[in-house]
Amino acid sequence: MKAVVYKEPFKVAVETVPDPAIQHPNDALVRVTSSAICGSDLHMYEGRTAAKPGIVFGHENMGIVEDVGAGVTTIKKGDRVVLPFNVACGFCKNCVAGYPGFCLTVNPGFAGGAYGYVAMGPYTGGQAEYLRVPYADYNCLVLPQGKEHETDFILLADIFPTGYHGCELAQVSPGETVVVYGAGPVGLMAAYSALLRGASRVFSVDRVKERLDKAQQIGAIPINFDQGDPVQQIKDQTDGEGVDKGIDAVGYQAVTQGAKKEEPATVLNALINTVRATGMLGVPGLYVPTDPGAPDASAKQGLLSVAIGRFFEKALRMGTGQCNVKRYNRQLRDLIISGRAKPSFVVSHELPLEQAPQAYEKFDKRIEGYTKVVLHPGA
Amino acid sequence: MKAVVYKEPFKVAVETVPDPAIQHPNDALVRVTSSAICGSDLHMYEGRTAAKPGIVFGHENMGIVEDVGAGVTTIKKGDRVVLPFNVACGFCKNCVAGYPGFCLTVNPGFAGGAYGYVAMGPYTGGQAEYLRVPYADYNCLVLPQGKEHETDFILLADIFPTGYHGCELAQVSPGETVVVYGAGPVGLMAAYSALLRGASRVFSVDRVKERLDKAQQIGAIPINFDQGDPVQQIKDQTDGEGVDKGIDAVGYQAVTQGAKKEEPATVLNALINTVRATGMLGVPGLYVPTDPGAPDASAKQGLLSVAIGRFFEKALRMGTGQCNVKRYNRQLRDLIISGRAKPSFVVSHELPLEQAPQAYEKFDKRIEGYTKVVLHPGA
Amino acid sequence: MKAVVYKEPFKVAVETVPDPAIQHPNDALVRVTSSAICGSDLHMYEGRTAAKPGIVFGHENMGIVEDVGAGVTTIKKGDRVVLPFNVACGFCKNCVAGYPGFCLTVNPGFAGGAYGYVAMGPYTGGQAEYLRVPYADYNCLVLPQGKEHETDFILLADIFPTGYHGCELAQVSPGETVVVYGAGPVGLMAAYSALLRGASRVFSVDRVKERLDKAQQIGAIPINFDQGDPVQQIKDQTDGEGVDKGIDAVGYQAVTQGAKKEEPATVLNALINTVRATGMLGVPGLYVPTDPGAPDASAKQGLLSVAIGRFFEKALRMGTGQCNVKRYNRQLRDLIISGRAKPSFVVSHELPLEQAPQAYEKFDKRIEGYTKVVLHPGA
Amino acid sequence: MKAVVYKEPFKVAVETVPDPAIQHPNDALVRVTSSAICGSDLHMYEGRTAAKPGIVFGHENMGIVEDVGAGVTTIKKGDRVVLPFNVACGFCKNCVAGYPGFCLTVNPGFAGGAYGYVAMGPYTGGQAEYLRVPYADYNCLVLPQGKEHETDFILLADIFPTGYHGCELAQVSPGETVVVYGAGPVGLMAAYSALLRGASRVFSVDRVKERLDKAQQIGAIPINFDQGDPVQQIKDQTDGEGVDKGIDAVGYQAVTQGAKKEEPATVLNALINTVRATGMLGVPGLYVPTDPGAPDASAKQGLLSVAIGRFFEKALRMGTGQCNVKRYNRQLRDLIISGRAKPSFVVSHELPLEQAPQAYEKFDKRIEGYTKVVLHPGA
Repeated sequence: MKAVVYKEPFKVAVETVPDPAIQHPNDALVRVTSSAICGSDLHMYEGRTAAKPGIVFGHENMGIVEDVGAGVTTIKKGDRVVLPFNVACGFCKNCVAGYPGFCLTVNPGFAGGAYGYVAMGPYTGGQAEYLRVPYADYNCLVLPQGKEHETDFILLADIFPTGYHGCELAQVSPGETVVVYGAGPVGLMAAYSALLRGASRVFSVDRVKERLDKAQQIGAIPINFDQGDPVQQIKDQTDGEGVDKGIDAVGYQAVTQGAKKEEPATVLNALINTVRATGMLGVPGLYVPTDPGAPDASAKQGLLSVAIGRFFEKALRMGTGQCNVKRYNRQLRDLIISGRAKPSFVVSHELPLEQAPQAYEKFDKRIEGYTKVVLHPGA
Repeated sequence: MKAVVYKEPFKVAVETVPDPAIQHPNDALVRVTSSAICGSDLHMYEGRTAAKPGIVFGHENMGIVEDVGAGVTTIKKGDRVVLPFNVACGFCKNCVAGYPGFCLTVNPGFAGGAYGYVAMGPYTGGQAEYLRVPYADYNCLVLPQGKEHETDFILLADIFPTGYHGCELAQVSPGETVVVYGAGPVGLMAAYSALLRGASRVFSVDRVKERLDKAQQIGAIPINFDQGDPVQQIKDQTDGEGVDKGIDAVGYQAVTQGAKKEEPATVLNALINTVRATGMLGVPGLYVPTDPGAPDASAKQGLLSVAIGRFFEKALRMGTGQCNVKRYNRQLRDLIISGRAKPSFVVSHELPLEQAPQAYEKFDKRIEGYTKVVLHPGA
Repeated sequence: MKAVVYKEPFKVAVETVPDPAIQHPNDALVRVTSSAICGSDLHMYEGRTAAKPGIVFGHENMGIVEDVGAGVTTIKKGDRVVLPFNVACGFCKNCVAGYPGFCLTVNPGFAGGAYGYVAMGPYTGGQAEYLRVPYADYNCLVLPQGKEHETDFILLADIFPTGYHGCELAQVSPGETVVVYGAGPVGLMAAYSALLRGASRVFSVDRVKERLDKAQQIGAIPINFDQGDPVQQIKDQTDGEGVDKGIDAVGYQAVTQGAKKEEPATVLNALINTVRATGMLGVPGLYVPTDPGAPDASAKQGLLSVAIGRFFEKALRMGTGQCNVKRYNRQLRDLIISGRAKPSFVVSHELPLEQAPQAYEKFDKRIEGYTKVVLHPGA
Repeated sequence: MKAVVYKEPFKVAVETVPDPAIQHPNDALVRVTSSAICGSDLHMYEGRTAAKPGIVFGHENMGIVEDVGAGVTTIKKGDRVVLPFNVACGFCKNCVAGYPGFCLTVNPGFAGGAYGYVAMGPYTGGQAEYLRVPYADYNCLVLPQGKEHETDFILLADIFPTGYHGCELAQVSPGETVVVYGAGPVGLMAAYSALLRGASRVFSVDRVKERLDKAQQIGAIPINFDQGDPVQQIKDQTDGEGVDKGIDAVGYQAVTQGAKKEEPATVLNALINTVRATGMLGVPGLYVPTDPGAPDASAKQGLLSVAIGRFFEKALRMGTGQCNVKRYNRQLRDLIISGRAKPSFVVSHELPLEQAPQAYEKFDKRIEGYTKVVLHPGA
């Protein structure tokens, strides 16, 4: 089959690789109809990870079930399904406790697995014509037949739940004020989710006008942090109090005002100052324990200089970690079906699989409006 | 009246100060029967804060109501009461939301007030014969008449709820494994609370044999961190997995193994390594935004080098902040009355008020077994 | 001052009664600008309660503070405030635990007090020019100055929080399906709240076309229960599964299909059949322990024939009771201010106080579109 | 193999039946070492259900894995395991949401399956030498090797989690007062669990002296309801207030004082009167939608006369339903292993499988101290 294969830093190619097959009674084989490119794919693409050439990318996948193993009970050929980026077993201690993102079974020696990602287990990515899905009964979310909502549903694989997860970690509740740092795809999904959950006001902080425009379109209040300290801008709009809850959708590659330099803790520390005493921080966006490209020796080991003194004084709480997609994807699917959510507003491009190389290049450079690309194998 | 007055670093005196009086219709005047010395009093005593000479110490107070203002409804002369160390109004946004430790009314410009503590508002301390209690209906917890359980009940003012708060922040649940770093009074109260809440195993980490002995007596598993890396010791006892939940009862004055030097983030980072993926950290004690005595320039501003990369990878959550005593003191009182909790095991000395100067000196030096002193004015 | 006084069954009059005054240091005196008539006022109006002639009605009140007692700290003359219908102290065990609707202080011998309502304590109603507000710091919610949103804010006194309370009792969460039985003012507020909280689909059951039209306007799915079994109609729209959550906004005066007769448990039992296994029921709408007008001897004592067997088999959970307004009114106010909620769509009439007698009569008869009347004393 | 087979009302026999076998890739085959007789087995034994002759009883099972299917990943031959009485898939909507007792997969057309129970699916019971376990990775809880704690661990299949479930439904928290109606095996487990969770006082209501003695031994306060109204007895010991939380471990076969007659709602209504306003009721045991043996026509259909008026006035909440064992069994296992729980105090008899007929007879008659029998096949 055709698949997007990593060749070397800044280079992927669409090549022919072996077809996947049912390997285990609980597997399903899915013909991929959509597979999105994620910002985290760029980490591998840029060569900032240990990913080896030859890996097939793609952890945001959906498609049509082609075949299932003898142990599969509720999923059948022809089902239209979307797959959480997390590969999970459904029965280990963490899965049962509601943390499938930290499955103890699928990637021995580590808590958590994923498709097409370095160190996340032997699961080939879905930027390809076919995908093997382990524990199919658990990992497949069935969708309505047909082609409707394809670009909404594909976002259920990762970024819509991930944005929502930020709100869940911060326990965003009706009537609250919320800040979301970052208005990239995940940040927009977080702001959108905060509004879906009934927040009274959502501040969206970024430095890119197009992103802030999108935030405003969905009902958030844009804050351009290149035009002044975002903490002060938000305090000015909240009687000096700050917001109830805050979400970090930027992560460790945060930059200072004017993008002068990378400063990995700058968003975390801004959040600590923006959120009022007794508030909560949800941190879906990504921090890593080893980052060879970090600006200093501590940060290379994931040690960041955090304003813990202020954090404590304000009695803040913080939740972190990658999203447990299965915890939310059913409910978010139902919001899409009922017409109350339409997350596809973040999708900038739909392309055939063959155009993946150009898509990676332009997305990596953030040019020509490439913000969220959905690939359609076989299209 | 007689009161413990701060004179200069390492010196307090028992002196005559003006009697407190009802100043507001919602005040009560309490004749103090017990007032405990807290580890946090030593911060002022050692001159490491902005506390000015003349301040009367004492935020762990109980006694008998002598008089009430015209607005007080449910508290009356003769009632035996214990007072949360937090002074709070009961009706501001934070009090109503269950955060009286962050009251917006009693200490304008700051979230939270307390008796006898620098920067916590104009509330004279209770290491004295009498104490003025604002918003008496809200702040007084009524106790059974008589003298029974005096050394248990006095601990309801601060350290029993504070230890319990650590468990609440970490959401310690029945059957879980828990580590508590620190086996001083608050750490012991945290370990004791974890067991009261049904933890299956509680590891208590310290370097002082007497403290670890006490931890063992109440059913915790002692871990001497001068005898080897505590993280490894605990992993060895948990099949390499680590514990479900962790509590930091050490705070910013943490020291490295062998007490060779202060390293403010060492306990936080050890917790991050001790608690398993998906776990929670409760941090009741204490980190500060400014610490002139800190070992480096960042720490002086409360910026600590925290293993955020690992924290995120493990999807940890963390809750911090001083205890909201009123949230727990009623239930903990009832456990004392029913005989199911007896926290006074941590009290090392009961002394008349007059002996406060010696008590401070010996407690500060941690000599002669001074671990928790209760002063009895008028005794 | 002028006030709406209950004279006899089916008769109220606007009469001159003594002006209220500050009686206690924590009181405030409020000049009433809006006071709404509640469905529960009709219970007294119709003579189905023990209410004695002479009582002044009105528990949904807002206005301008005219004076405060010496103990009041944060409320001052000139503040625009809305008052929860519950009178509460803020410091008793139940208030502190978040249940001000069950205050143990304000109505000795009973859990809970209210303005202008039989057996709810000595608190004169607010369908009058002035209102005495006890524990003013606790009971007043401050609003933006001016006249904006008057008919939205007045609903914060009772029905908007009460509808929201139904959702809270049923723990309505994003993506869920919900049924609300009853599309009167409280039912509409419940449906509206479910949508604000992110429900995917909300079914609104009633038999009055105007009400169902209103439900549809706000995004709910109307179910006319005179046109067929509502349980079946809803199962037909949910693949036979029923809904995740259900709200009873009808209460004990429920009638059977075609309104042929009163059958007090009919809505409860319909809910048990409509909600799927593992679901929850929120019951804000009113059941009473004694009802002289009930259709049978058991119901007269509040004993209803409930399908407990089915309830258990489906592992349902149920929360009940009058709303704890203060738990929600601040957040709901902020949704109104930010423009994200506009509950005044339920208000049918705004009238001067003098027209109260006609308003009661027409509202009681449900004629001329009288569904929710706001009286404006002094208008 | 040998198994306990239902023959006719009041008669079981140990007979040879076909050996179970691996039927599905996710099955395991377990050699049963312990299988307990449950009170709910007596419903079938007495002929009060639709159970047909030939059914093999036994839903409280543990043993040693003999074989596994090709899809099983984490369970292997030789593992010592205990099985929840619920048979569940682990991947349906309800299982994922934490309700494996209401699995939508294993018993099509109904929410929930179980071993050896009428209408709960095609799963042969474990009062036999061998047991087929579907979805073995999900349903097996692995225990330490050996023979230790056998009579504690067998209780993890049902009654220890079921008693604990009562506490969870009532959200029993540290310091609270609790009443448990019924001091049979489940009631004792509920009282024991309430104490493990840190309740300050637990009242245990029954009419059998031996049961009350056992309740007292574990630290509960016995209330003999044949010696006076239990509501009044408990109010007398709680300053007239009643308790915070209540658990119904009696169910629909409740009798009136002196056991004069069956009155199915008598315990529910007593709970409503015993629990204070704002409290919660946990109802683990058992109400049924059809009961041919009920005392009246309504009760035969599961319609009981419940004091809903009072329930609402007190703002009570109620949770019901059979236990989701997997939600608790791991944590309770760990409490047994760490020595902090020892539920086997309820076991009255350990017998070889062959003595099942006599055991059923005596347990049904409640003679010779038969309260909880554990059968050991092959012993």
